[in-house]
Amino acid sequence: MKALQYRTVGAPPEVVTVPDPEPGPGQVLLRVTAAGVCHSDIAVMSWPADQLPFPLPLTLGHEGVGTVEALGAGVEGFAVGEPVAVYGPWGCGACSMCAQGKENYCLRAAELDIRPPGLGAPGAIAEYMVVDSPRHLVPLGGLDPVRAAPLTDAGLTPYHAVKRSLPKLVPGSTAVVIGTGGLGHVAIQLLRAMTAARVVALDVTEEKLALARAVGAHETVLSDASAAAAVRELTGGRGAEVVLDFVGAPPTVTSAGAMAGVEGDVTIVGLGGGALPVGFGSPAYEVSVASPYWGTRAELIEVLDLARAGAVDVHVETYALDDAPKAYERLHEGRVEGRAVILPNG
Amino acid sequence: MKALQYRTVGAPPEVVTVPDPEPGPGQVLLRVTAAGVCHSDIAVMSWPADQLPFPLPLTLGHEGVGTVEALGAGVEGFAVGEPVAVYGPWGCGACSMCAQGKENYCLRAAELDIRPPGLGAPGAIAEYMVVDSPRHLVPLGGLDPVRAAPLTDAGLTPYHAVKRSLPKLVPGSTAVVIGTGGLGHVAIQLLRAMTAARVVALDVTEEKLALARAVGAHETVLSDASAAAAVRELTGGRGAEVVLDFVGAPPTVTSAGAMAGVEGDVTIVGLGGGALPVGFGSPAYEVSVASPYWGTRAELIEVLDLARAGAVDVHVETYALDDAPKAYERLHEGRVEGRAVILPNG
Amino acid sequence: MKALQYRTVGAPPEVVTVPDPEPGPGQVLLRVTAAGVCHSDIAVMSWPADQLPFPLPLTLGHEGVGTVEALGAGVEGFAVGEPVAVYGPWGCGACSMCAQGKENYCLRAAELDIRPPGLGAPGAIAEYMVVDSPRHLVPLGGLDPVRAAPLTDAGLTPYHAVKRSLPKLVPGSTAVVIGTGGLGHVAIQLLRAMTAARVVALDVTEEKLALARAVGAHETVLSDASAAAAVRELTGGRGAEVVLDFVGAPPTVTSAGAMAGVEGDVTIVGLGGGALPVGFGSPAYEVSVASPYWGTRAELIEVLDLARAGAVDVHVETYALDDAPKAYERLHEGRVEGRAVILPNG
Amino acid sequence: MKALQYRTVGAPPEVVTVPDPEPGPGQVLLRVTAAGVCHSDIAVMSWPADQLPFPLPLTLGHEGVGTVEALGAGVEGFAVGEPVAVYGPWGCGACSMCAQGKENYCLRAAELDIRPPGLGAPGAIAEYMVVDSPRHLVPLGGLDPVRAAPLTDAGLTPYHAVKRSLPKLVPGSTAVVIGTGGLGHVAIQLLRAMTAARVVALDVTEEKLALARAVGAHETVLSDASAAAAVRELTGGRGAEVVLDFVGAPPTVTSAGAMAGVEGDVTIVGLGGGALPVGFGSPAYEVSVASPYWGTRAELIEVLDLARAGAVDVHVETYALDDAPKAYERLHEGRVEGRAVILPNG
Repeated sequence: MKALQYRTVGAPPEVVTVPDPEPGPGQVLLRVTAAGVCHSDIAVMSWPADQLPFPLPLTLGHEGVGTVEALGAGVEGFAVGEPVAVYGPWGCGACSMCAQGKENYCLRAAELDIRPPGLGAPGAIAEYMVVDSPRHLVPLGGLDPVRAAPLTDAGLTPYHAVKRSLPKLVPGSTAVVIGTGGLGHVAIQLLRAMTAARVVALDVTEEKLALARAVGAHETVLSDASAAAAVRELTGGRGAEVVLDFVGAPPTVTSAGAMAGVEGDVTIVGLGGGALPVGFGSPAYEVSVASPYWGTRAELIEVLDLARAGAVDVHVETYALDDAPKAYERLHEGRVEGRAVILPNG
Repeated sequence: MKALQYRTVGAPPEVVTVPDPEPGPGQVLLRVTAAGVCHSDIAVMSWPADQLPFPLPLTLGHEGVGTVEALGAGVEGFAVGEPVAVYGPWGCGACSMCAQGKENYCLRAAELDIRPPGLGAPGAIAEYMVVDSPRHLVPLGGLDPVRAAPLTDAGLTPYHAVKRSLPKLVPGSTAVVIGTGGLGHVAIQLLRAMTAARVVALDVTEEKLALARAVGAHETVLSDASAAAAVRELTGGRGAEVVLDFVGAPPTVTSAGAMAGVEGDVTIVGLGGGALPVGFGSPAYEVSVASPYWGTRAELIEVLDLARAGAVDVHVETYALDDAPKAYERLHEGRVEGRAVILPNG
Repeated sequence: MKALQYRTVGAPPEVVTVPDPEPGPGQVLLRVTAAGVCHSDIAVMSWPADQLPFPLPLTLGHEGVGTVEALGAGVEGFAVGEPVAVYGPWGCGACSMCAQGKENYCLRAAELDIRPPGLGAPGAIAEYMVVDSPRHLVPLGGLDPVRAAPLTDAGLTPYHAVKRSLPKLVPGSTAVVIGTGGLGHVAIQLLRAMTAARVVALDVTEEKLALARAVGAHETVLSDASAAAAVRELTGGRGAEVVLDFVGAPPTVTSAGAMAGVEGDVTIVGLGGGALPVGFGSPAYEVSVASPYWGTRAELIEVLDLARAGAVDVHVETYALDDAPKAYERLHEGRVEGRAVILPNG
Repeated sequence: MKALQYRTVGAPPEVVTVPDPEPGPGQVLLRVTAAGVCHSDIAVMSWPADQLPFPLPLTLGHEGVGTVEALGAGVEGFAVGEPVAVYGPWGCGACSMCAQGKENYCLRAAELDIRPPGLGAPGAIAEYMVVDSPRHLVPLGGLDPVRAAPLTDAGLTPYHAVKRSLPKLVPGSTAVVIGTGGLGHVAIQLLRAMTAARVVALDVTEEKLALARAVGAHETVLSDASAAAAVRELTGGRGAEVVLDFVGAPPTVTSAGAMAGVEGDVTIVGLGGGALPVGFGSPAYEVSVASPYWGTRAELIEVLDLARAGAVDVHVETYALDDAPKAYERLHEGRVEGRAVILPNG
């Protein structure tokens, strides 16, 4: 079959022909319908050889949707031909984290050398992919597979971040979304669908802020050194109950800390290299600052349910598998509108 | 001043002239702008003399909104002329329940003979009313006082019921509202504003179901002996995660129990005299059945914030104070559309 | 191998020789070290043929501990020889309940005909047993296997019941345990280890109450018609925050409801056939009444951790496999002290 | 009456005679039985004049216990002679934080110039003190007043910190207490009484670690640069679920961050001037870092209930009011064992 592989450190990924995979006992073979292209792949491909935590070549793609092509020995509960999404952050399945479906925080993944598809295991940007267990499949149930693919990461990651803060997002509260791109514009939609909080979006251009308003932000603020003051003013001095930072750069995390009100949450999702110092008196009392990773199995089910209800939608550009290298190129250049999705069998 | 009083057991309430009240130390005098008329007043007026837990005459009205007219000695934090809503379920303010703002569940109210205004203490259907503490006031902050008055009970009670179940109302879940009248039609709006759950409304006529859809119900079902089966079918056999019964009659609580899915909530709000038996195997495993009363202080603040955001609206009919007896008459006859509100100074 | 089977409806179970089981793909074969004998088996064996939800013969035993004997194809993460406990309430592993480790509430178990070992699938009272997935194994980590076996049900079930109520068991609160036998005497220990609540135990003889005090109850009360009044008195009129009823008979559930204070929990665990009616005003406001079943995967891990810390201990009597029928006989006669445990390879 | 006052910036406090206070409307006059001496007073007295947020002279003491001497006009619910503890972090009583009893996080205290007794308002180290509202009183109910006084801060502050993390302190989890002095040695007792977590204490001398073990720590570790590695080893590599840092200095917050496991909590209570940077990948995923202040009204009730049950005990040294300056001197020199308590009427 054809697959998009990262083969040489520092080189762009290539479409190559590899042997057709077979599902082992307990595994499931999918015919891939759609696979998302993610910024984190570009980050991985920028690492030097000695920091790469897995061998090459690597088939890329950690956002995958497909139809069940074959069930490995012993697999039950899914039917051949059934359309499914793949839960990406695979874990051991048995530790106390995995026992709650928090495989993104598996306690034994490192020890057992378990890695997500496209980030160590063969990924979704290929005609076929092997999923290690049926527990990592979620039925699509009528969802458009192309729009569903990005939900497995670009949907699940902000969903997890929002869910951590739901108890604080009571009516009258304010949620700030910093960075309204891929994940941020989904976060705005999630906040509107799941809470009655006022949503304030921050970004660096008026054009992006207009998009934020179009997907549901009540208020928008330019993301600069005065942003924290602006949010304080919008909230009558109180500050925001929740700040979700999808940029995570030094200036945004500083702003995030400064605009959070007493007992609020600051959640740093973006990989921008910033870190917010937390000590007595700064940020405000009992502001909880954390940086999560991806999401849980149950949350992916909920995200897909939300999409099925029409409450969240990701803008996509589609590419044939042969054009996948071009999609990465365009993403790298910042020219992708929303999310690029590869159709390996399209 | 003029006040609407319940003076003789079994007789209708009358508009009478009573001495102007004065705020004692720590109290606040309000000039009443609007006061809601509630079914529970009619229930109280149907009790025989030996079951009445307070002496007559009683000035009615437990849903009150007004402007601060005078502050008793020692009161701070509110200004004369400020428009406020009254939190009705007064408690001692100091026990462990009151220390969390759950004055509706005050542990010492009975012992200290503390009663809500209009349900023991002089109520809001009068030109002026005394509020026992500024902690029972919530600033209106621009809300229309007439539409705000019913929120203090007809808004707060369903809000409290919804809030108990928020953790179960994840995307993909189903919330059923039984009875779409005064409280139920508010509950539908609350569920839509605060959650991404699918909302199913049940009532006994197509006309009421049309109203339920108009205020946001995704689906409607006639409330009869087959309703539980219909909800099971709508949910693919799983049952509803949350059932809020604003009728509380024997057939509705039975339906509520039968349509709740594993680990769901059944919340009985209505005073219809029904009781749902809970034992091993019925209702479904770990369905939590409870019957709450009114709501907390923080929740009233949240309800008013929600109304200010435009997310909840109560239909009202207004009456002058002299016409208040007629409002009770019409309510008793089932002829009030939404909520009747008295304007004592209108 | 030898196994204890229930072969004929209404007849006692027999030790028989059956073919040695083999683990299929994704399964694990255990050499059984210890298997608990449970009242619910006796209940199952009392059902008439037309109510039996699975075919005979059935190898009994849903509380199992063993060592890994062989791994089916594709199984990783466990080593041959490793001592493990078996999580019994098997589910599909993929639905939204299973994705949170709540396989006891699997949404697809009935549809897919998945049943717990010893309650449909071949059970643990045999020399060997097949476990359907490594996710149903928890490493024993040094625990005595004989004392650990009952923890998988007689420990996990009360643990789950206690955990539901932890937020209410603050210092100053009261937890009542009704029935101090197999599960109840574990519940007392769990409450003492995990909370600072005052623990009140109820049972029908002074002898049982003495045992309750020995395992940690602060107070004991005879379980009769005046028990609710006695608990009210012990709590200054307030009632208990949490009542766990391990009997579940009509008189105990009535008492449970009458002794629960405002916003309390009543959890009915016992299969005694009682049901507590819940409606407005009775039990006290917002008392949450529910009847759960078994527990979750993460909870079993926690129960074993608790036992490893020395905080919970189950009294056991041991029997060789050939004497297993006698264990059931003695249990039926009420002559087992604590929990009977079979040692199939002892 | 006599009172201990901070009168001149930089000078030690003095015992002076001031007019006897009278309770205004809504206030309560206490005859002070015992008042705790706290490190934060010393911090306040080290501030330069232009940073002092309140005028001098100031009667010190924010940990007070007394008997009700007189009720201001309009006060009900307490009886003259009743022994009570004072909740110190006074707020407005009406905002959304105060409506939940979180007066420590009052949203209007600054605007309304409301300050705690001893930290702006006249404090407890005096023969009499005025409490601004009966809602700030908690009945002692038989507790020894001398041992109870420090519970209002040195008990309440660690209690609040522990309570934030209770959901993570399941059996099998590890809680680390850094700094085993005044607040830390209470935290160890609280963790043992309220959870089944393993408690690991860190401090800088073997003597202090011995004390930590004496009050309940399961394990102790010297607090140095290798402490995080030691905790990682004690937890099999996983890290601690909860780290409570009562020192809060740069090296301890760094250690705290390094020893926290995935999804853990780091709570910085100490005023040592340290700040822990939080960003993607460091600390571990979704470690929540926060720095709280004091505690809530309901939590003070719970702390006193816990002390009444014998589960928490603070070591105290007592001083007459005339010797209060000496107590501050000894505290400043680090020579107070446990907590110094002044007996103004002793």
